Amino acid sequence: MMQPPAVAMGVRLRVLAESATGSAALAIHEAPVGDHRDLATVTAFAAQCDVLTFEHEHVPGPILEKLVADGVPVRPGPAALGFAQDKLAMRRRLTELGLPCPRWAQVRTFDDLSAFAASLPGGLVLKTPRGGYDGKGVLLIDELTGDRAATAREWLEQAGPDGLLAEEKVAFTRELAALIARSPSGQAAAWPVVESTQKDGICHEVIAPAPGLTEEQAVEATGVGLRIAGELGVVGVLAVEMFQTADGSILVNELAMRPHNSGHWTIDGAVTSQFEQHLRAVLDLPLGEVRARSPWTVMVNVLGGEYENLYRSYLHVMARDPGVKVHMYAKDVRPGRKVGHVTVCGDDLDDCLARARHAAAFIRGDIDE
Amino acid sequence: MMQPPAVAMGVRLRVLAESATGSAALAIHEAPVGDHRDLATVTAFAAQCDVLTFEHEHVPGPILEKLVADGVPVRPGPAALGFAQDKLAMRRRLTELGLPCPRWAQVRTFDDLSAFAASLPGGLVLKTPRGGYDGKGVLLIDELTGDRAATAREWLEQAGPDGLLAEEKVAFTRELAALIARSPSGQAAAWPVVESTQKDGICHEVIAPAPGLTEEQAVEATGVGLRIAGELGVVGVLAVEMFQTADGSILVNELAMRPHNSGHWTIDGAVTSQFEQHLRAVLDLPLGEVRARSPWTVMVNVLGGEYENLYRSYLHVMARDPGVKVHMYAKDVRPGRKVGHVTVCGDDLDDCLARARHAAAFIRGDIDE
Repeated sequence: MMQPPAVAMGVRLRVLAESATGSAALAIHEAPVGDHRDLATVTAFAAQCDVLTFEHEHVPGPILEKLVADGVPVRPGPAALGFAQDKLAMRRRLTELGLPCPRWAQVRTFDDLSAFAASLPGGLVLKTPRGGYDGKGVLLIDELTGDRAATAREWLEQAGPDGLLAEEKVAFTRELAALIARSPSGQAAAWPVVESTQKDGICHEVIAPAPGLTEEQAVEATGVGLRIAGELGVVGVLAVEMFQTADGSILVNELAMRPHNSGHWTIDGAVTSQFEQHLRAVLDLPLGEVRARSPWTVMVNVLGGEYENLYRSYLHVMARDPGVKVHMYAKDVRPGRKVGHVTVCGDDLDDCLARARHAAAFIRGDIDE
Repeated sequence: MMQPPAVAMGVRLRVLAESATGSAALAIHEAPVGDHRDLATVTAFAAQCDVLTFEHEHVPGPILEKLVADGVPVRPGPAALGFAQDKLAMRRRLTELGLPCPRWAQVRTFDDLSAFAASLPGGLVLKTPRGGYDGKGVLLIDELTGDRAATAREWLEQAGPDGLLAEEKVAFTRELAALIARSPSGQAAAWPVVESTQKDGICHEVIAPAPGLTEEQAVEATGVGLRIAGELGVVGVLAVEMFQTADGSILVNELAMRPHNSGHWTIDGAVTSQFEQHLRAVLDLPLGEVRARSPWTVMVNVLGGEYENLYRSYLHVMARDPGVKVHMYAKDVRPGRKVGHVTVCGDDLDDCLARARHAAAFIRGDIDE
């Protein structure tokens, strides 16, 4: 999704692809296949680039440190990226900065965990500090007994020397996301704050802007995003996922330092998409306008479901609603895998929601009329 | 510019490229280099495609006829395309259909031309029926004497057996364009009619929708476009360039059967761009919504000018106006060559015009502040 703005801006992309048939390799001309965890591979790849950036946060820190030492512009840099790679480091840093977080503890033993659980009014969430995504590496524990306690023990045994991150289970009323772009020269831009809905730990739906968010709340959420971007030295796009609680206050949930699912709405819905902005930011070009192009934009993910081949249902959606923008990712369809998204922009939120939800559900095969 | 919507729709593009370093070859993965005038080359290329379409009208008719005979879906088909390739055939057909054209004549000799000139109140325009574009192959003759007469004689001598097309010089007040998409199954869609301004025979600026166009005039211009698309059996995007005269009436000027410069505004300015729509049409997919996304969209071409390298001026424009969308074509800069375009969308036409004109002029180097 970075390729279209790259073409328009005259920026040439090369991608270190996981496989020759992956989405990135299909869309980008120069797509050598290689392992992003291998120093020699990444070094050889980086030698052909002016700037190195990422579509995920999984390139190991030591490799990035080595590249920086060799003079390669790595954006975001390993210091910033470390906070997206390691949730314990992130919680520690945000707490130092006085930013609003759920109560949390670093737990190495079951006793640590029990003590933390006992300090909480409700349940907790156990997280592997590294490598989790889309709900993986996250264990919800309402009561630290039975099966959950057994699984927690297993996770603790398998954890590295840093142990695990335990967080209070926040009684949130909804989730918000602040999307920020920041360039090496310090210019920053913040898109309107959105509401996101997860299903089974996976982003399901995004509404831009977040309905009913007060000006004050929007300023607060945006301010937290901008402060994190600045203090952590983020370059490129930063997504800050947040919980909003019943009293309207916010708590930071997760960080992503790359174009993020909560920002896919910007492709059709904002003057500058997160993908264009990420390129502008990592190339230290002036940032583009982040204004929404319509009063409302709704993005709904298309997950693999009923159908192995989505072509016929996709066709139906195109015919039924010529105004829905469907983005398919050229990925093999597996149940629960994100294989595309749909976006609807308009003046009426209920209309946008109904159309986007219908289109996504129909393509997936949840409904057939 | 067809690649971004192709990626989003999961459509795989292959292009028969003029050179390995051309814009299309840079943007599209599978881009064998070859001559579009060579039957064997085009046949071998077409064998790897499900549907064949065009970014220009210069593939010879006999090659297209051969492909159709071999069962290749060629869209638009050679019969329709013939009217975009041959201006005499176009004038003849539109006149048969009773569609509004400037007065015209097929001229083989200087006597033919003199007789036609004598029948006109004002000047005339002499055109080579085939191969002209961007003002090439067009001779403006206010009086058929001196140098102009000598050049006309030369053109007539060099013309093929069909001679040349002579048209009255229309005293137009402005130029309009109707942009239509039509699919093989006959579904058609028409974007808002635009006003276009030419400089030296090259499209310079497009305003969508055409300011001050009455509902009646818009319906008429759109109707002419739809009628041409249907009667000529066009598949894909059709641009109908028109003159509007002082009394508000319209006359058809030229046809293009492909995404056209007068439709570049749709990339940023319409729900469905002409490039996405062209793909939908030639693949016989349902057409997308053609509604404008803002009250006004202004597109200004960036022609090669003062600067050989546009990077610094491009950078300045990005910094000065974060809301301007700049599209560069990755072409070597030569004076007068279209190397990109800029688009500004908004609520205020004067503001959009000023910003788009400034950006294009600044990138080109006509102004430096």
